[in-house]
Amino acid sequence: MKTLKIVKIGGNIIDNEAALSSFLEGFAAIESPKILIHGGGKLATQLANQLGLEVKMIDGRRITDKATLDLITMVYAGKINKNIVAKLQSKKCNAIGFSGADGNTIVSKKRPIKTIDYGLVGDVIKVNTKILQVLLEHKVTPVFCALTHDQKGQLLNTNADTIASELAIGFADHYQTELYYCFEKNGVLKDVNDEDSVIKQITTKNYQSLIDDKIISDGMLPKLNNCIHAIEKNVHKVCIGKPEMLFESNANFTTITK
Amino acid sequence: MKTLKIVKIGGNIIDNEAALSSFLEGFAAIESPKILIHGGGKLATQLANQLGLEVKMIDGRRITDKATLDLITMVYAGKINKNIVAKLQSKKCNAIGFSGADGNTIVSKKRPIKTIDYGLVGDVIKVNTKILQVLLEHKVTPVFCALTHDQKGQLLNTNADTIASELAIGFADHYQTELYYCFEKNGVLKDVNDEDSVIKQITTKNYQSLIDDKIISDGMLPKLNNCIHAIEKNVHKVCIGKPEMLFESNANFTTITK
Repeated sequence: MKTLKIVKIGGNIIDNEAALSSFLEGFAAIESPKILIHGGGKLATQLANQLGLEVKMIDGRRITDKATLDLITMVYAGKINKNIVAKLQSKKCNAIGFSGADGNTIVSKKRPIKTIDYGLVGDVIKVNTKILQVLLEHKVTPVFCALTHDQKGQLLNTNADTIASELAIGFADHYQTELYYCFEKNGVLKDVNDEDSVIKQITTKNYQSLIDDKIISDGMLPKLNNCIHAIEKNVHKVCIGKPEMLFESNANFTTITK
Repeated sequence: MKTLKIVKIGGNIIDNEAALSSFLEGFAAIESPKILIHGGGKLATQLANQLGLEVKMIDGRRITDKATLDLITMVYAGKINKNIVAKLQSKKCNAIGFSGADGNTIVSKKRPIKTIDYGLVGDVIKVNTKILQVLLEHKVTPVFCALTHDQKGQLLNTNADTIASELAIGFADHYQTELYYCFEKNGVLKDVNDEDSVIKQITTKNYQSLIDDKIISDGMLPKLNNCIHAIEKNVHKVCIGKPEMLFESNANFTTITK
């Protein structure tokens, strides 16, 4: 089986022009088939402020009303996605920008209202890989923003980490799928204040004891649950760390495997 | 040769939710391979006003500075394009949104400064149809916004009519290409105030005499020059009129042929 690398970048790279440019340089040079997923960064909040739009948060989660969805569609699918695509093209990487509506690639369902109504937020229910596979075979690199659709004409805001893991799971039968979460730290740390305390290997076997022993901090739990879920669904490995983990042979980062 | 329909819609459809929905219903039902190109409508100007961005015009042409390019990238490639794609998906038309940067499909060059510096405006120099053809063969419908790129990482603002004609020309060797310009009138009119005075047939042979006799008005000249150019480059036919021309057998519109 061929390897497919699925790479997610967040605000810490997107918001920094030099970091983004250097990341895209390295990403473009990856030879295997690859998919990029990007979050939103600070641009959406900045534009919301400029437009006098109130950012509604409940328990640290953004509430996506109609005006907010329009705004993130403009920022994520428009400005950020198209600029990344144009920059990758300049580095000879033939990218095409995607939301989950494009090619009907990621279908989601509006999150049901329990205690909180998150608004126009979608939970992924299906990933359609066929068109993406055709494009990968033609050496095209899909670049996803964090939007999905409900097949009824509605775009929905979806967590970029989830989009990355669902895509990785969707491709696991066709490729040896590797999922890379780039973030601002060296990996999962034993001591959050010590960048040298990276836990190099997490497996489905030692995961629970790392939680029980409170070695994995609360903040990392949702991210790691996502990773473990992907591994259980046949994703070959999940790596968490700085973007250097993709490009440098001696980089320090966390690998999650079965 | 198979038929490929390339359809351009402008602000009069995009700005009107009911008109857009009805157009997309009909467009989705077209059975032959098809490509949609959309202009921007009033949304970009509205957002510019909300953000206090000055719209710079010289001789009726928008000057595209960096802030304006960011704005139209958000509105055209983000909000308008992704909403059209999501709506087409709801009508079982498997659409993928494109700028000219996506798939390196439309390469342009910043317009040289003569008397006016139009800013970040691109004149098309190359159309790459290979990836689009692969998608069309897989029953995917590309939806283009009016942005191209220079292959050096810069997005450029490009006239949507031109994108439509350049795409039609690019496909003319592979398909029997039909180009449809939808606008607010019934077609090219002998008398601009009389919707019944449609010139039904224009050919490369009678075109010059229609200009000499001042039957074609000045306002239509740039649009028609685009059409004649496409016909001379082997586009099978160009039609100008209301969207009904695509869906109703008794519609009244202008057809331009060799």
